Amino acid sequence: MADINSPIEIGVTTGPIRGSRKVHVVAPGNPKVQVAMREIDLEPSSGEPPLRVYDTSGPYTDPAAIIDIQQGLPQLRRQWQLDRGDVEEYAAREVRPEDNGQLGPDRSGGVPAYPNVHKQVLRAKPGANLSQMHYARRGIVTPEMEYVAARENLGREALAGHIRDGNDWGASIPDFVTPEFVRDEVARGRAIIPSNVNHPEAEPMAIGRNFLVKINANIGNSAVASDVASEVDKMVWSIRWGADTVMDLSTGRNIHDTREWIIRNSPVPIGTVPIYQALEKVGGIAEDLTWEIFRDTLIEQAEQGVDYFTIHAGVRLPYIPMTAKRVTGIVSRGGSIMAKWCLAHHKESFLYERFDEITEIMKAYDVAYSLGDGLRPGSIADANDEAQFAELYTLGELTKRAWAQDVQVMIEGPGHVPMHKIKENMDKQLTACGEAPFYTLGPLVTDIAPGYDHITSGIGAAMIGWYGTAMLCYVTPKEHLGLPDRDDVKVGVVTYKLAAHAADLAKGHPAAKLRDDALSRARFDFRWRDQFNLSLDPDTAEQYHDQTLPAEGAKTAHFCSMCGPKFCSMKITQEVRDFAAKQNQAPDAFIAAEEAEAGMAAMSEKYRETGSELYVGANGREHD
Amino acid sequence: MADINSPIEIGVTTGPIRGSRKVHVVAPGNPKVQVAMREIDLEPSSGEPPLRVYDTSGPYTDPAAIIDIQQGLPQLRRQWQLDRGDVEEYAAREVRPEDNGQLGPDRSGGVPAYPNVHKQVLRAKPGANLSQMHYARRGIVTPEMEYVAARENLGREALAGHIRDGNDWGASIPDFVTPEFVRDEVARGRAIIPSNVNHPEAEPMAIGRNFLVKINANIGNSAVASDVASEVDKMVWSIRWGADTVMDLSTGRNIHDTREWIIRNSPVPIGTVPIYQALEKVGGIAEDLTWEIFRDTLIEQAEQGVDYFTIHAGVRLPYIPMTAKRVTGIVSRGGSIMAKWCLAHHKESFLYERFDEITEIMKAYDVAYSLGDGLRPGSIADANDEAQFAELYTLGELTKRAWAQDVQVMIEGPGHVPMHKIKENMDKQLTACGEAPFYTLGPLVTDIAPGYDHITSGIGAAMIGWYGTAMLCYVTPKEHLGLPDRDDVKVGVVTYKLAAHAADLAKGHPAAKLRDDALSRARFDFRWRDQFNLSLDPDTAEQYHDQTLPAEGAKTAHFCSMCGPKFCSMKITQEVRDFAAKQNQAPDAFIAAEEAEAGMAAMSEKYRETGSELYVGANGREHD
Repeated sequence: MADINSPIEIGVTTGPIRGSRKVHVVAPGNPKVQVAMREIDLEPSSGEPPLRVYDTSGPYTDPAAIIDIQQGLPQLRRQWQLDRGDVEEYAAREVRPEDNGQLGPDRSGGVPAYPNVHKQVLRAKPGANLSQMHYARRGIVTPEMEYVAARENLGREALAGHIRDGNDWGASIPDFVTPEFVRDEVARGRAIIPSNVNHPEAEPMAIGRNFLVKINANIGNSAVASDVASEVDKMVWSIRWGADTVMDLSTGRNIHDTREWIIRNSPVPIGTVPIYQALEKVGGIAEDLTWEIFRDTLIEQAEQGVDYFTIHAGVRLPYIPMTAKRVTGIVSRGGSIMAKWCLAHHKESFLYERFDEITEIMKAYDVAYSLGDGLRPGSIADANDEAQFAELYTLGELTKRAWAQDVQVMIEGPGHVPMHKIKENMDKQLTACGEAPFYTLGPLVTDIAPGYDHITSGIGAAMIGWYGTAMLCYVTPKEHLGLPDRDDVKVGVVTYKLAAHAADLAKGHPAAKLRDDALSRARFDFRWRDQFNLSLDPDTAEQYHDQTLPAEGAKTAHFCSMCGPKFCSMKITQEVRDFAAKQNQAPDAFIAAEEAEAGMAAMSEKYRETGSELYVGANGREHD
Repeated sequence: MADINSPIEIGVTTGPIRGSRKVHVVAPGNPKVQVAMREIDLEPSSGEPPLRVYDTSGPYTDPAAIIDIQQGLPQLRRQWQLDRGDVEEYAAREVRPEDNGQLGPDRSGGVPAYPNVHKQVLRAKPGANLSQMHYARRGIVTPEMEYVAARENLGREALAGHIRDGNDWGASIPDFVTPEFVRDEVARGRAIIPSNVNHPEAEPMAIGRNFLVKINANIGNSAVASDVASEVDKMVWSIRWGADTVMDLSTGRNIHDTREWIIRNSPVPIGTVPIYQALEKVGGIAEDLTWEIFRDTLIEQAEQGVDYFTIHAGVRLPYIPMTAKRVTGIVSRGGSIMAKWCLAHHKESFLYERFDEITEIMKAYDVAYSLGDGLRPGSIADANDEAQFAELYTLGELTKRAWAQDVQVMIEGPGHVPMHKIKENMDKQLTACGEAPFYTLGPLVTDIAPGYDHITSGIGAAMIGWYGTAMLCYVTPKEHLGLPDRDDVKVGVVTYKLAAHAADLAKGHPAAKLRDDALSRARFDFRWRDQFNLSLDPDTAEQYHDQTLPAEGAKTAHFCSMCGPKFCSMKITQEVRDFAAKQNQAPDAFIAAEEAEAGMAAMSEKYRETGSELYVGANGREHD
């Protein structure tokens, strides 16, 4: 009974990300929709305006916000929900000991109940459907869609004169995102806006092939390690660095209470795998799982506000033997639980059989499906095999069944796939699942680098993101080895953020290149602080710089540590430009002049006059 | 005059890489050629033979070797060279103070001269040509080629029944590498074996599209930081983790002596950028560079044993103005030096004008060209532009001129390239340069992640390696920020090793998948130590595992920390297999049986009999 009633101390990181400010941009046409963004200020010498970037960090980076973990975040979306007039309030299901895996009287070591639980919760009135897809299909542009449109545009009007540079593999990325475009994408099932009615704290965001590529961070305790304070801290930490959604993958005890602490404090959508908790409720015996227990768990979690559920309904009985010849069999925990259940009963999966009943629950709260790939490959050897694709086709069938009830769906994907087999995954998914958003775990492009699987998977993630995957589930350096700590979470998030951004760039997203160009200009101009601030991780960038050249003066120096003051390649370019300018010639004319024999000596002389000392001063750009 | 005559203390890391042994495999048909490899021993319970892997680490990982940094490594290739009868010995050029940038009397802070300098050096007899390409074109299979063949095969015979799985984009990768195949690839210019006659310590290796993808590590001091002890240590450290070649990019003072320490102790080919040293000899004033000073530097370095020279001969005068409109101008140090020289004199580059004279030097020592891409893009904005490709076409022209004298050539490539523009780089290079090996720096696929540029570039490196790049120049986390330390070097090497391996896998290299499969089997079997030992970095893998589950028992436990003892997805697969086996059915028959209604109850009963407790025990494989 140790600490269960004592107040819990939870510390999270707050304050602005360095060099930037939180701003709220009013969505065009709806002053009630104020979209959080971040602006990075550049040095006055640059003559450049602040750069606006997508911001997932919520109120935690807003100095004006009051953060109280015990109370939770403000309910941004509550009024929008009530205004629609299709919800009813009711008393939430009572929490039972088994919800926290506490089957006996001993609650020692448990997690305290959240101090500000929502006892009254919302659901659809009888006959209503709260899904954003449902609104979209009826032609309604919700405030959530307006929020998403403004957020994706980062407040910009259409980029005048923007020349599209990319290969989007057949996607339909607009130059400018309108609320109507968002509505249409959601109506078609090409995008989802995960937005459980009981998670009004969340800032709306879209997952879809024609929007910015998103990333998910997994957190969650296990029976072996972790506690609620560090999980809440990891959630806040992961969104600070760019996680667009967070999955709480807790297993073991205290699942219910841990989740409550996370959801009430999360400004991003939260996903779960409900079968984990259902399994705890039956003491870990998969065969003892029943539809009734699972259904009850879905309602419990829907009332708490989980925004998307991973449901492994594609693990059908006939597919299980297809895994027998694999090198690594079934590697999905949810998939393996269902496989065990199917084998033990020799029955078709109740998730598959009861799918339409699950959908009824989803639409009552607007929980989105994340159809789990329980048979995904767990090794290079098993990639793109019969079991994997058999399940994918079933997920396509289930997508259509969910869509028939206007429920939002995304599709989970692998896993471990060598580079030459990645595109096939994307192509098959687009075809089988009618362009429902794809949500992949990496994939890892080799198995031989445990300890570096954020990188092996980041390679595959960037590629599949380019090909059309809408959200990339991060992998941390600890994957396959242990539970990620705070540092691992940050490395995983930043790695996936750069992979997602690389995908946006390659797809030709109209605005993605603005940040690259701003950073490159800062690099060329030796604006070190701007380089740090424009990067995905300003703290690490500055720390690395300071390890070699710690002096404050070095941050304004026109050289760096790799080349030293005599070897700067950037400086000469400036001299080339100056020279061209003094010739008063456009570069093309300059080239022509070069080729003319006459006047060579004169030009040479002029160059020397303009100052030719080789202070190629600066460092660290490129080797050789 | 401080420490110049005191003995220098240099510590390097020696001893086997954990879990493995150095072996020497006799090349078929030539007992004089004994090829160093590494064997990873697996746990007896696996029933698997040791896995042989490519080994770049040299004698440092051989407990039987005596390492004496002051004396240097044994001269593996010396007798082979003498046996060919085409070399002459002569007294090396005397070292001059300016070779070490010491233009005045003060040598304080300098690097001591290497204690065991080769005063007598080798070069081709008049009229001879020592290039491996020259031998290859005359039909001679050298011991170097035999070494390479055995090394690439890792001592395996053709993999019986191997089914090629990959997309090699038109490469010609054989199932089994013969010495004749190596000779043919070198003769055609599709591969090089960098092997300066004065670096007999080096173990032969090949760089070419039809061989395993190689990686290069850059080291080198600068005027700002670093010293010779740490550079030698970094060289040994980088080859321990898999660097196939090392470039010494030192600038500033002590260039000559630093290089001597490195070469005499390096079992891998060493590359340099000679213009760096030439520039030091003229006090850093680019305009004062002359052909005579450059030529003298080439000979100085060829006599020391540099195996390949980066020569920026493609930076031609007319191309320089093409960089004026770029966001980041010229980012190559060598390129910018030559650009400055060209502008100042308003003359064509002496490297271009004197190219055939340089080639004469190259063939007298068998130094390979690494034709530098001095105009490569330094930002996403500048990728694939006019300047870059103008230079590339010139490098193609120079390749043919070098080949006309039977001199080996590889081509350097970018740099910063978004994903959708990477393949164009490879395709253009193959066409323009007649399939001469491509050697790229990354490329980085976005500019926005300083501090993580090993990853942004690792993504591009894996992709371009897959498309056909023969060697990938590593990028460390410190790129653009500072000089890499020992830890950065390791992270850079391992990142590039995994990228190169991912490329080999995707190309369908016949043996690449053996290691992935061995590691995946170990993972499935919970052979933790085998997982660690089979990984690219066993120390980090074990350390990460131990952070969550430090107990020694956890290394044999059938679960891990991510899922804990109740949630193991691997275990259920074993149960699926056991169940199928007890049915005495092949999986296909099992599937058919599943679908038959009859007998379902009986099968269910049987499954329960076989033991159905859900000890899904193990962790850490995959999330959800």
